[in-house]
Amino acid sequence: MAEQRIGAVEAGGTKFVLAVADAGGQIIDRARIDTRTPAETFPEMAAFFARHAPLAGIGIASFGPIDINPASPGYGTFTTTPKPGWSGARFHDALAGLGAPILVDTDVNGAALGEWLAGAGKGCETLAYTTVGTGIGTGVLHQGLSRGGIGHLEAGHIRPARDPQRDPFAGRCPFHGDCLEGLASGPAIIDRWGVPLDEAAKSHPDAIPLVASYLADLAVTLVLLHMPDRLIFGGGVMKTPGLLESLRARTEARLAGYVVHPRLDPGLATYITAPALGDDAGITGAIALGQRALREGRG
Amino acid sequence: MAEQRIGAVEAGGTKFVLAVADAGGQIIDRARIDTRTPAETFPEMAAFFARHAPLAGIGIASFGPIDINPASPGYGTFTTTPKPGWSGARFHDALAGLGAPILVDTDVNGAALGEWLAGAGKGCETLAYTTVGTGIGTGVLHQGLSRGGIGHLEAGHIRPARDPQRDPFAGRCPFHGDCLEGLASGPAIIDRWGVPLDEAAKSHPDAIPLVASYLADLAVTLVLLHMPDRLIFGGGVMKTPGLLESLRARTEARLAGYVVHPRLDPGLATYITAPALGDDAGITGAIALGQRALREGRG
Repeated sequence: MAEQRIGAVEAGGTKFVLAVADAGGQIIDRARIDTRTPAETFPEMAAFFARHAPLAGIGIASFGPIDINPASPGYGTFTTTPKPGWSGARFHDALAGLGAPILVDTDVNGAALGEWLAGAGKGCETLAYTTVGTGIGTGVLHQGLSRGGIGHLEAGHIRPARDPQRDPFAGRCPFHGDCLEGLASGPAIIDRWGVPLDEAAKSHPDAIPLVASYLADLAVTLVLLHMPDRLIFGGGVMKTPGLLESLRARTEARLAGYVVHPRLDPGLATYITAPALGDDAGITGAIALGQRALREGRG
Repeated sequence: MAEQRIGAVEAGGTKFVLAVADAGGQIIDRARIDTRTPAETFPEMAAFFARHAPLAGIGIASFGPIDINPASPGYGTFTTTPKPGWSGARFHDALAGLGAPILVDTDVNGAALGEWLAGAGKGCETLAYTTVGTGIGTGVLHQGLSRGGIGHLEAGHIRPARDPQRDPFAGRCPFHGDCLEGLASGPAIIDRWGVPLDEAAKSHPDAIPLVASYLADLAVTLVLLHMPDRLIFGGGVMKTPGLLESLRARTEARLAGYVVHPRLDPGLATYITAPALGDDAGITGAIALGQRALREGRG
């Protein structure tokens, strides 16, 4: 019998990363395709996997909002995404022809799983992975399983404390205006200063402290509401030099010594960290989901 | 062989509720003792249980902060509580003589468990129970197990948006000043207006909307970070007429239609509710923990 193969998809708003791995998770083949409409992107995705059929399990870490409840009839279906054409699109329909069990989770949960297995989250019982980019989202894993409820977490939409004197920008979230994503995502930074954060910092000395202050509200909230072993902050905005350090300092100041645990080291230098896998976290997590689909036989 | 008996403790800052139940959870005997120092209260608690020995399992739902990690050497030990004499006190030391397996969780997790089993949380996969009284705390259960990480949740210390023009009160949390507990707990209300909220509302028309606004920040944060099926709000402050209704309205306005799910009914009338068990939620949950201790044999 041939080696069992795993399919994996990291589905983002601009690109899909596809991979086929052996049962041990070693990548055999990978590809990158543009995210267009489901009618264009899904067949291209399916064709890639068809070349490696049969697959024994498929794992998907996707942008959302998407139904990630395996017990739901809509499992794997995009729900209210504003991305044209994607509401109602379903991974299972596109991949049903392959006959493999499929597990679907969010992009941030997938990245969290990748970092937990092979990156900066190894050994953590409770891990929070946040991405700060086009959007802001957090995946929380406990013992390797993502936390959620009637849907996946939406941590990017908490409302940070805002001082209009310091920051007159009203925010750009179409639902909430000045929620965290409305104030501190990449597009919010461009809207406010006209340039990315590293550029803005050259002419606005408060730019990095301001964004760090908003993100610290999320970090503190994650600590108080999930008590993770570690917080990983990744995504394009977090690559801005000095931002991670500023986030650590503000988070520590806000916590004010209230949460006492050896994991919260002085300066939070090991408590709040960058991802270790860089751009490979998502596909690593998707492969792990595919391996889990194989073990559990879920479809 | 005699019927197996369960011991249960709801340990609060002013009183301990003690109960002995049969293996099916029916209460056989109960008592209420004042919370003084551990040297006084613990022997009185142990003497009550000794009269019903042997016990097959003991469940404890306690005020905190307290170590609730069964794998920790300090399991069942109060940590940094400001309550004189209680830091370092350990339930297991007081109850070791009974030879029964013991499970310890927080008071809010215990109340959540009680409501989940027999009250307003029945049938919920993910349930958040918040108490607003001397302190503010939330217990989140998923499939009947309390969520936490390196410690139990500390949701009362999130920082709500505050407008000093509207509310000049600076907050009373010794760690954070104007965190939620510092602004909206019973003692914060007394500090600000000199009287409980129902009295304050007579001369300050904004009192209930203001407190509801702070609590809505917690409700929204719980939705975004845990996606519960339902939020239960209990505790002394929540008995103020009109507060629950105001909290529902403000929470719905803040969410602004972003989270779409049948559970979030119009007006959140069934989504945000009062407890159904009233003062019995905690001891009901403690009995359930004792039954679990019996099943799992944990000590």
